[in-house]
Amino acid sequence: MNKFTIIGCGLIGGSFALGLKAQGFVGEIVGCDRPAVLEKARLRGAIDSGVEDVKEAVAGADLVYLATPVITIMDLLPEVAEAVAPGTLVTDAGSTKVRICRLAKQVFPEGVTFLGGHPMAGKEAGGIENADPELFREAKYVVVGEEKQLTTETQRNTQRRNGDGEEVGEINAGLVGEFLGWVRKLGAEPVTLDAETHDWAVAFVSHLPQLLSTALASTVWDETDDDGLPLSLAAAGFRDMVRLGASPYDVWRDIFLTNRENITQALERLEQRLARMREQLQSKELAEEFEKAQAMVALLKTERKNDE
Amino acid sequence: MNKFTIIGCGLIGGSFALGLKAQGFVGEIVGCDRPAVLEKARLRGAIDSGVEDVKEAVAGADLVYLATPVITIMDLLPEVAEAVAPGTLVTDAGSTKVRICRLAKQVFPEGVTFLGGHPMAGKEAGGIENADPELFREAKYVVVGEEKQLTTETQRNTQRRNGDGEEVGEINAGLVGEFLGWVRKLGAEPVTLDAETHDWAVAFVSHLPQLLSTALASTVWDETDDDGLPLSLAAAGFRDMVRLGASPYDVWRDIFLTNRENITQALERLEQRLARMREQLQSKELAEEFEKAQAMVALLKTERKNDE
Repeated sequence: MNKFTIIGCGLIGGSFALGLKAQGFVGEIVGCDRPAVLEKARLRGAIDSGVEDVKEAVAGADLVYLATPVITIMDLLPEVAEAVAPGTLVTDAGSTKVRICRLAKQVFPEGVTFLGGHPMAGKEAGGIENADPELFREAKYVVVGEEKQLTTETQRNTQRRNGDGEEVGEINAGLVGEFLGWVRKLGAEPVTLDAETHDWAVAFVSHLPQLLSTALASTVWDETDDDGLPLSLAAAGFRDMVRLGASPYDVWRDIFLTNRENITQALERLEQRLARMREQLQSKELAEEFEKAQAMVALLKTERKNDE
Repeated sequence: MNKFTIIGCGLIGGSFALGLKAQGFVGEIVGCDRPAVLEKARLRGAIDSGVEDVKEAVAGADLVYLATPVITIMDLLPEVAEAVAPGTLVTDAGSTKVRICRLAKQVFPEGVTFLGGHPMAGKEAGGIENADPELFREAKYVVVGEEKQLTTETQRNTQRRNGDGEEVGEINAGLVGEFLGWVRKLGAEPVTLDAETHDWAVAFVSHLPQLLSTALASTVWDETDDDGLPLSLAAAGFRDMVRLGASPYDVWRDIFLTNRENITQALERLEQRLARMREQLQSKELAEEFEKAQAMVALLKTERKNDE
């Protein structure tokens, strides 16, 4: 892997580039973004050179990494597909996968491998300013495909088949293996999922928490009167719950546009539970909700410990 | 202030006691709790001696500090009222204030001052094991009363009046002032509120976040299937959002029992907002919710900075 092109040098793209450098990647890292972002990415040592034009940036690249918001990735895919050479591995870090992977299947010619990806890491403050080579440490890194295709042991190109066993192109297993090796070096754990399962799962553990945090923050904001109450009584627990509320809308707009059904379902489940808890405010059933929540948090803590 | 009796030597009572010791309190601190808890509190250096019997514990105390769950405080108040000497200041750290303050008004004889209190600090893990002398640092500490009565400049006893200006007893301003001095030494900021305003405010910034965190945790728990999804994809944002879900139900049961109306209202507001956001998932109105949330989080951060 000699030329690694990163389109979108913000928090995720910038962090991946910084992580590669920190882990000893010796190839060239080319950034593609607005000039002001490229300048910052260069100054931070994330990229070796910056190119504004997408086609120019991906020409001759061994790996193209798309790290913009979802809709921008979808806008860029046809252009990338026109410019990449056969043998290239194209991957992305978009927060939803069904729409991106479906489009990728349509636009990429045979010989170009597209690997949908989603690192389960982030911060509420985006941008290259907040990029961090350690961002992916202990994070799951979802890759879309079949387990067998993605095993790093497979060092030769394999026929890529769809669900019915039809050949749908080649997967460049060598490059995929190399890429997943870097993902591991950055401290993340690759997890293979199909796109539908991914989009359902993140609706619950990523998109739902974001909407709850935003809703809590704006509810309390609307309730707060001239003397600052109730907000002025907020303590650490509240601060943690609204921290995600600082996330920029432009990233989330694309997520809501491309995962509406799953998010709607997750919100409905939560709304129903809240309504039930409200009715049960003084009954023993509420104790069961607390016990369930405690069990879950305890499990999360154990997993964290096992990871360390 | 020579004898300081703390009834309930868990997270809050234990932390207050440890804070007093750390800040140079030289009087005697007597703990009142179950023997096993008293033993731990003694070993941690929070209390000088432990007494199981409430009447024995409060006899001769200058200040009695009730730090049990709300309903237990209400159960204890009549007993405390029978045993305290005139001139004593009784205060509490209960999470809701209307019911406690109403009962206190009924049970305490003239000459005994009751000051409702609520430190806006805590942790999801309770108990003397988790007590921390720094727990109250930068926290608001609500005291129930009228601003004028509670000023530390007032060093003489003042007549206590109710809303209609009637005399309703004496407030021991000397002891109140001394107590608030210790609250400040522990790093907290006293805030004077009436009980009704307190209970309304905490429904939004404390009780609502707790219920949301519990609901999110139990929703995801119920959704999680045998292969661990969606929970296994949870990242830092999700962990922060369910952290409060580890809180023990026994403390919260009392809060729900004594602040039902306010909590019901807060939950309804939030449910309505979530339903609206769900309908607006792909419209521009959702951007406004995000902007509002961002503004609130930015304000919280500024306040934090100003505090430091």
